[in-house]
Amino acid sequence: MKLSEQEIEFQLSTLPGWKRKDEKWIEKKFRFKQFLEGIAFVNQVADLSERLIHHPMIAIDYKMVTMRLTTWNEGGLTDLDFVSAREIDGLYQKQNT
Amino acid sequence: MKLSEQEIEFQLSTLPGWKRKDEKWIEKKFRFKQFLEGIAFVNQVADLSERLIHHPMIAIDYKMVTMRLTTWNEGGLTDLDFVSAREIDGLYQKQNT
Repeated sequence: MKLSEQEIEFQLSTLPGWKRKDEKWIEKKFRFKQFLEGIAFVNQVADLSERLIHHPMIAIDYKMVTMRLTTWNEGGLTDLDFVSAREIDGLYQKQNT
Repeated sequence: MKLSEQEIEFQLSTLPGWKRKDEKWIEKKFRFKQFLEGIAFVNQVADLSERLIHHPMIAIDYKMVTMRLTTWNEGGLTDLDFVSAREIDGLYQKQNT
């Protein structure tokens, strides 16, 4: 179910680096020292998104990877987008510690 | 070295599906039956681009993968972009035959 504006604002306030984009989307950029580290991250996120059956749009611009989330079926942002965002952040932290 | 317009047109005429974008870029969309097939393709292209030391911008929109090439150092399109495009096509064909 689509989240209210208030719920979206609250969720975003708990997710550093994630930004609202064009109403329907949340987006975050992840930076890597090496191109192939970014690719490894994309593979991790790919596995996660198959598990959640929820796939972010992914852009790989050399050492920068951008993740964008929305829920097509609902025409906006749902809990699933924020669950995904949180798990994606976890994968990034795990890879970079 | 930056290619002339004539050379670019000729190269593009030999590469089905690759299109000029915003002057400096060539772009092609690759479609897959499964999300993870697209991810496998991205991994192949990542290895190729490390070998060529020439990295396409990559967008993964669920089962569609878009590759965009330019040569930053030259501010436009060079032979290296078309060599990459040809090799990327080869990887796609190999994966899909």
